Amino acid sequence: MSAATYEFPLSERMRNYLRIEHLMAQAKAAAAHDDSHAHLNYFSHLFTLLDLIERIDVRTDVVKELDTQERNLVHWSQHPNINSDALSETLQAVIHTRDKLKASKKPGSELKLEGFLQSIRQRFTIPGGTCSFDLPHLHFWLNKPTDERKADMALWLSHIDLLSDAISLLLSFLRQRSQFVELTAPNGFYQGDAEDKSELIRVRLAASAGVYPTLSGNKYRYALRFMQMKGDQAVSSTADITFDMAACK
Amino acid sequence: MSAATYEFPLSERMRNYLRIEHLMAQAKAAAAHDDSHAHLNYFSHLFTLLDLIERIDVRTDVVKELDTQERNLVHWSQHPNINSDALSETLQAVIHTRDKLKASKKPGSELKLEGFLQSIRQRFTIPGGTCSFDLPHLHFWLNKPTDERKADMALWLSHIDLLSDAISLLLSFLRQRSQFVELTAPNGFYQGDAEDKSELIRVRLAASAGVYPTLSGNKYRYALRFMQMKGDQAVSSTADITFDMAACK
Repeated sequence: MSAATYEFPLSERMRNYLRIEHLMAQAKAAAAHDDSHAHLNYFSHLFTLLDLIERIDVRTDVVKELDTQERNLVHWSQHPNINSDALSETLQAVIHTRDKLKASKKPGSELKLEGFLQSIRQRFTIPGGTCSFDLPHLHFWLNKPTDERKADMALWLSHIDLLSDAISLLLSFLRQRSQFVELTAPNGFYQGDAEDKSELIRVRLAASAGVYPTLSGNKYRYALRFMQMKGDQAVSSTADITFDMAACK
Repeated sequence: MSAATYEFPLSERMRNYLRIEHLMAQAKAAAAHDDSHAHLNYFSHLFTLLDLIERIDVRTDVVKELDTQERNLVHWSQHPNINSDALSETLQAVIHTRDKLKASKKPGSELKLEGFLQSIRQRFTIPGGTCSFDLPHLHFWLNKPTDERKADMALWLSHIDLLSDAISLLLSFLRQRSQFVELTAPNGFYQGDAEDKSELIRVRLAASAGVYPTLSGNKYRYALRFMQMKGDQAVSSTADITFDMAACK
């Protein structure tokens, strides 16, 4: 049965990680298509991603958190009942990523020197400002053979790969740390545990359930409210909703 | 041999037509794909399109111009050497489109009443503001079966189809009115005819030419300057460039 998973971050740091993961996925998906319409979308995702990582110092957060992960893993490796092969592999991945990220330049900074990207970037802040007559050199690029365009797009994204991989690693740890448990929201409402201090709330629902969750609150106190579309209006559900939840910390 | 065609509008009206044509093509291309990443892009093109047609009264321009086309076609139909079948077909298309457009509500106005679209539209003005946690109901929609999503997307676009079709008709007349002629730009520079009063300059170049045109000026005076990429910097070409041009009016 197909299910939809909703993720709600409960901290600013987690919100930034999820945004970067989302934009990276959007950029990669656009680059994977063959048509120039999709490739035009690639640039808007790339530039939004660059805006975000230039504005916030996400690398410092990521390095600090990889340090914490390293200490945890070393701690666990001293337990007798742990599969030490898998653990040491993970530990290596963490150390390798952390060291490379520490030694690297500010993510995306090299793309600031890339003349072609810089010459088109400004226009992407203007909605609908990327017609071929606004940017003839982009139109020229969009008329290049698909292989060449794909190579360019992969090269540009590679400047952010390291940061993006590190965030994927941290998010995969976080997601794996908590198991889904089945819960019920009486009258479509569920109050989270205030003692929990979770970073990320994951909610899984059968696509056929016809409802979706919204979350309000923060890591000290949060509540889920299940909604449904009536016609084209969203209204609170009053049904008892069974759902899976993982509170990740 | 593959060729790239560049179009440069010489009036504000023509710029608007080309923007609408471009955004419509982007929205349709996104809707044609099957993945939810592409469908997320659909919304950003749709909303940009709505912003544009709400801001400017493009319908009045279009109706006026269809009136002019009708008079021209009636005038031509009195010429003896004209294929009257093709002409009367075109005339019917013009009259039909013009009358429907005149009788219709303001293009896109019905979408303003569409609760789902209105509830997500605001977030699309925030770069990177369309993560699943920003818009859980959009995430819900993106998890619907592909067929349902495609039906929704087609329905929403259909509210702009009439205006978009009328603009396509006008642009196709304009593009057909002028033939491409081969020209040379000595030292990569070409000065347009000041007497011309064209609306749209079309430049066709072999993709292998390695240069692209830029245009400066207006309908009374314009110049083409051919550029090339040296590494990642754009520089003026100093070669004699052979190109095809159509000055449409």
